[in-house]
Amino acid sequence: MDLSLSPKLLELQEKTRSFIKDQITPFENDPRQSEHGPSDELRKELIELARKAGLLTPHASVEMGGLGLSHIEKAIVFEESGYSSLGPIAMNIHAPDEGNIHLLEEIATPEQKERWLRPLVAGKARSCFAMTEPSPGAGSDPSMLSTTATKDGDDYIINGTKWFITGADGADFVIIMARLDDGSATMFLSDMNAPGIELLRNMDALDSCFTGGHGVLQFTNLRIPGNQILGELGKGFKNAQVRLAPARLTHCMRWLGQARRAQDIAIAYAKRRQAFGKTLGEHEGVGFMIADNNMDLHTSRLHIWDTALLLDRGERGNFESSRAKVICSEAEWRVVDRCVQILGGQGVTGETQLMKIFKDMRGFRIYDGPSEVHRWSMARKLIGNK
Amino acid sequence: MDLSLSPKLLELQEKTRSFIKDQITPFENDPRQSEHGPSDELRKELIELARKAGLLTPHASVEMGGLGLSHIEKAIVFEESGYSSLGPIAMNIHAPDEGNIHLLEEIATPEQKERWLRPLVAGKARSCFAMTEPSPGAGSDPSMLSTTATKDGDDYIINGTKWFITGADGADFVIIMARLDDGSATMFLSDMNAPGIELLRNMDALDSCFTGGHGVLQFTNLRIPGNQILGELGKGFKNAQVRLAPARLTHCMRWLGQARRAQDIAIAYAKRRQAFGKTLGEHEGVGFMIADNNMDLHTSRLHIWDTALLLDRGERGNFESSRAKVICSEAEWRVVDRCVQILGGQGVTGETQLMKIFKDMRGFRIYDGPSEVHRWSMARKLIGNK
Amino acid sequence: MDLSLSPKLLELQEKTRSFIKDQITPFENDPRQSEHGPSDELRKELIELARKAGLLTPHASVEMGGLGLSHIEKAIVFEESGYSSLGPIAMNIHAPDEGNIHLLEEIATPEQKERWLRPLVAGKARSCFAMTEPSPGAGSDPSMLSTTATKDGDDYIINGTKWFITGADGADFVIIMARLDDGSATMFLSDMNAPGIELLRNMDALDSCFTGGHGVLQFTNLRIPGNQILGELGKGFKNAQVRLAPARLTHCMRWLGQARRAQDIAIAYAKRRQAFGKTLGEHEGVGFMIADNNMDLHTSRLHIWDTALLLDRGERGNFESSRAKVICSEAEWRVVDRCVQILGGQGVTGETQLMKIFKDMRGFRIYDGPSEVHRWSMARKLIGNK
Amino acid sequence: MDLSLSPKLLELQEKTRSFIKDQITPFENDPRQSEHGPSDELRKELIELARKAGLLTPHASVEMGGLGLSHIEKAIVFEESGYSSLGPIAMNIHAPDEGNIHLLEEIATPEQKERWLRPLVAGKARSCFAMTEPSPGAGSDPSMLSTTATKDGDDYIINGTKWFITGADGADFVIIMARLDDGSATMFLSDMNAPGIELLRNMDALDSCFTGGHGVLQFTNLRIPGNQILGELGKGFKNAQVRLAPARLTHCMRWLGQARRAQDIAIAYAKRRQAFGKTLGEHEGVGFMIADNNMDLHTSRLHIWDTALLLDRGERGNFESSRAKVICSEAEWRVVDRCVQILGGQGVTGETQLMKIFKDMRGFRIYDGPSEVHRWSMARKLIGNK
Repeated sequence: MDLSLSPKLLELQEKTRSFIKDQITPFENDPRQSEHGPSDELRKELIELARKAGLLTPHASVEMGGLGLSHIEKAIVFEESGYSSLGPIAMNIHAPDEGNIHLLEEIATPEQKERWLRPLVAGKARSCFAMTEPSPGAGSDPSMLSTTATKDGDDYIINGTKWFITGADGADFVIIMARLDDGSATMFLSDMNAPGIELLRNMDALDSCFTGGHGVLQFTNLRIPGNQILGELGKGFKNAQVRLAPARLTHCMRWLGQARRAQDIAIAYAKRRQAFGKTLGEHEGVGFMIADNNMDLHTSRLHIWDTALLLDRGERGNFESSRAKVICSEAEWRVVDRCVQILGGQGVTGETQLMKIFKDMRGFRIYDGPSEVHRWSMARKLIGNK
Repeated sequence: MDLSLSPKLLELQEKTRSFIKDQITPFENDPRQSEHGPSDELRKELIELARKAGLLTPHASVEMGGLGLSHIEKAIVFEESGYSSLGPIAMNIHAPDEGNIHLLEEIATPEQKERWLRPLVAGKARSCFAMTEPSPGAGSDPSMLSTTATKDGDDYIINGTKWFITGADGADFVIIMARLDDGSATMFLSDMNAPGIELLRNMDALDSCFTGGHGVLQFTNLRIPGNQILGELGKGFKNAQVRLAPARLTHCMRWLGQARRAQDIAIAYAKRRQAFGKTLGEHEGVGFMIADNNMDLHTSRLHIWDTALLLDRGERGNFESSRAKVICSEAEWRVVDRCVQILGGQGVTGETQLMKIFKDMRGFRIYDGPSEVHRWSMARKLIGNK
Repeated sequence: MDLSLSPKLLELQEKTRSFIKDQITPFENDPRQSEHGPSDELRKELIELARKAGLLTPHASVEMGGLGLSHIEKAIVFEESGYSSLGPIAMNIHAPDEGNIHLLEEIATPEQKERWLRPLVAGKARSCFAMTEPSPGAGSDPSMLSTTATKDGDDYIINGTKWFITGADGADFVIIMARLDDGSATMFLSDMNAPGIELLRNMDALDSCFTGGHGVLQFTNLRIPGNQILGELGKGFKNAQVRLAPARLTHCMRWLGQARRAQDIAIAYAKRRQAFGKTLGEHEGVGFMIADNNMDLHTSRLHIWDTALLLDRGERGNFESSRAKVICSEAEWRVVDRCVQILGGQGVTGETQLMKIFKDMRGFRIYDGPSEVHRWSMARKLIGNK
Repeated sequence: MDLSLSPKLLELQEKTRSFIKDQITPFENDPRQSEHGPSDELRKELIELARKAGLLTPHASVEMGGLGLSHIEKAIVFEESGYSSLGPIAMNIHAPDEGNIHLLEEIATPEQKERWLRPLVAGKARSCFAMTEPSPGAGSDPSMLSTTATKDGDDYIINGTKWFITGADGADFVIIMARLDDGSATMFLSDMNAPGIELLRNMDALDSCFTGGHGVLQFTNLRIPGNQILGELGKGFKNAQVRLAPARLTHCMRWLGQARRAQDIAIAYAKRRQAFGKTLGEHEGVGFMIADNNMDLHTSRLHIWDTALLLDRGERGNFESSRAKVICSEAEWRVVDRCVQILGGQGVTGETQLMKIFKDMRGFRIYDGPSEVHRWSMARKLIGNK
């Protein structure tokens, strides 16, 4: 048993840390960002920086052009990348592309990989994952899936509405989860400019860290050839599991970086700001919050590492990634909320990156399964209800 | 002892509730709102509605044109008004005007009242209160006040910078707290268009519910005649106490209305949305959150009422209003946070009013004294340190 | 609306406070107490003190020998009485006698009152209430009642086992909830020395504040004449409702007194004990805990008062007393837990009354309905599930 | 990086688990236990069982008769041992002997080891550590040490009072921290039957899991030869640091075992007990508590492992062991408190081991430094105050 980083990993950690600090954080106030995330122009500029630094798409296989990182190596690198909200975009490890890359590596056909995965890994294309639907469709409960796929010759005709589709605006292709006539679910790949796909609107969201924001997509008689089925027909949910645990975990990693950033902002402020005859940091009330932050940050890190090591040993880790997701999303949020409190008025204005982190992070307790769904799933396994 | 509402108060409660629901909530998506709050045009339109309904500036004295509400009557009426973020603006009981009206009623001279208070009560003017300063000036610790007032004949020359000045943009006049040469503090009244006052910028804030947003003001050799001193010379902090406890409490009241609104949105959603074979509301996990919300809402209400009744008995209520402020700002926030969680993805997008409430309310745990300052102030009194 | 105490009530409050402090607290280390509560000898000695002070059984009707206190008057007096764990025993307002007195006043026949209520009010008899059963019988879910009552001529034959029967050991009579053949529930009165009642054992409990502890009772062919039915046949649950809300609330009141005692012990210690160059109370970390305690104490008090005033207006208050019970049992517990932490090693040893309060109070979050059952009951009403 | 157990460690884990379950838990209701812990007779009987099983004093060096476990190996074995409150006593790894063995291995002279350490490792002797003093002496703040050691020839004369001395009653020897004339602190070894040592009383404590309970010791002109100085003269605090981090951590390990036991009791109950038409475990409210318990247990485990691995790498780990101590003592306590709630009435009576665990564990948030002292110590390091 060992939790010390190898020299190689320490070097990669340090390299990423410097890259983010020196080359990426200066862009954080770049005006080419809107409430729907950084512009494509800015994104491409950042991608080039990561490419030059040798840090682009590090989780992809070497064959596809990445660094072939293991889960535990991702844990180290993604945390560093997440220190800036622009880091994951620069390094091409943001959601949903990061998870889609993983998914395509695992289950796409060689032809599909050449067509969709390779440009994605190269940072030349963007993708989205169309799963969530408006009521009464699939939300926390995927079994309520209502978008339909009807066979027509060798093709499938897709109809339905999806929302909260992160990155939809500007994406080059989409992975669609739809229900066949027999009730089973299947994933389909489609270019976004195919006839029958319409971006109805971008949603007005609390976060602004995802390129392309969150869109509402309408599929109207979208025709998809049979060779664009992703994975096996009728095994959509099962195949998507491949994406599930790792995608949960990489969210935990990136947000850990953001939470650590918040803590650094708060500590710097607490050292500097005076009140009632001493610095804020010399007040126990503030000091306790900073200690609690450290505990929450390291607890998050340990659960990430523990689960990543388990995935690296070849286990599915569904229980453990559920647990890590609940713990990280709640602990990292507490950190950010405490930091806002320490900064006082400056915490709720754009004087630092903190307000943006606060707005960006709240959704993490909800997407990829809200805490309540994960708790219940854990409970059933622990008690053996099912 | 009695906590039942008199028929007269029940009627006023019902009247306000209907007014807000029928006449004000329809404006909530009115485009004349920006990140710095509703436009002045929208504000005036709403004010006219309240005037017609007989609900304008109800806390002002009858003499000045209000309804002369007691503190406990305000507790009932302001909670109802706060049910919509636009309610307090329509009824002219928003911060900081509401507290400034109270302050001017208590300590302004008759001439000052005619000049500044009367148009304020009539909803024709807006005001701001310039206290908070950038580091190393006055923040949570008012004794660090650094804006100076230097006597020059019968006038005073004001120099300094203030920030987080709510409503500064568009305000007609300002109350300025400044330090005399002898170290004592004094409040001054000034028209905002006086030479020497400059609005440097509006701050980029998390909230957008205050007309005029939060500004940064620069005073450069601002000349103020001696008859524009508000209250007594050198008694600025003591005089401002008049504003303190009531202003804290009216924040609690208005935000209680917003938190109740959040709960109503969440309950409606929990009744409607299905997941895992039943409505959300039939899941214990969601039900417990709704029960906890009810507890937090009523706890807030009881502390507001308790403190209001105490102020109505003529007590200063500094301890009790500190306590109510901590309890309400934290309990009402928990309510809103839980509601976001119940709504899931819709909680972090603009599909309902909830996201706006979430963004608007976070600052309440900070302004008018962050929880930590109030806790420490309470502790010292309880332990008798000082 | 008014929350100030009348001069009469202030006088009663002060009188009770002095009585507890001067006459009762000196008995707290009296050796005539075991893990199953104070001995009957000690109890009688204390009862005599309350009788002389005019404070015995103050909630009973004047007709029966009490002071005929309203619910809000009880709120004031019971909190004071609870300041000492022996106070409620001295004043004959401890559980379960206090609730049984209330129940008998409301629904007993005149003959039943003379036989059982009068000596109970006089402090000459003790009673118990036999409801809870071992699994699979009635616990949190009363519908699982399994003790049977079979009609035999004019009599009823009772068979079953009850546990957690507070005060059973030494009680003079018992109120038994049993199920008729038709499934309905009925309450029966019986002397404890009737043939067919056996006290199997006293349970080893965390608390030691209830006279007689908590017993396990076996009913074997216990014969009860028809005139010992309490309330209406088949209306046992409905009739017991009379006891429900007030009994919950008086628990809240008495434990509020104990929690206030804990806070006083902690403040005294924080003023005195030095660490790291100042008193404990001068450390913000400790000060914040004491401020939080004050908030929790007053929140409890306000919910008690609010619900008591509602009961005094003739409402049933089931929702409100559930809410008050959850809030008080959790808030008062937090107070005691924080006080233990403040006292450090002395908090977990018998150097002060605090450790006893800690042990005695934990059960309050469980009996009279655990928090979870009340939360769910509240949720259903709020959401309108049922 | 790797968190999987080696086959050797898995075997030791399984062996310990079986030993505790099969041979030790049957003694849990053995009557030879009082409020001051198991009797010496029972202790010796258990020690023999561990000796036969090859599990006695496993953390001692092989040279001294132990298994020479590393810190991470201890983490695995001690958690298993702690599953029963009698496990650590049987295996001779209970406090304070476990820490004293570690301390003596590190800093005692060869002669001291033969005289005091060898019989301690063999389970033939018991020891205590006399540090804490009544006010105004050393409590959370060790600098307030007031017991004096005055040089007299080659000897030292000790005077002072110590309390909360775990295991004092029945101990064979004591390690005493005392202050020299120059203000520096030194540790001394003394047989407990030396003239001048008096056990004034055993304290009435909430816990009953430590052999010998917690005593008050009086030193009156206790004469100690110079060769009984433990470590260096005047370096008492520095030398005691050796004991500090590991002793904190082994508490975390043992209590993790107890908390896991509580969870197992709660799960078994939740599977069995019916309420409102289903098992308790099928209620989300209960399920969420069980999921939270699992999170708290594994969080504790990960912090223990992380810190143990760090100590095994030769680092001092003061910060990390402070952090682990706060996290474990609070998380493990939450587990036990939730389990009590799940069991309802049975949680607050001696029907299961749970009530004992509840009483035994509360002190862990206090001893070895209360959470508040550790939080402040962490804060200073994080902020760099000092």
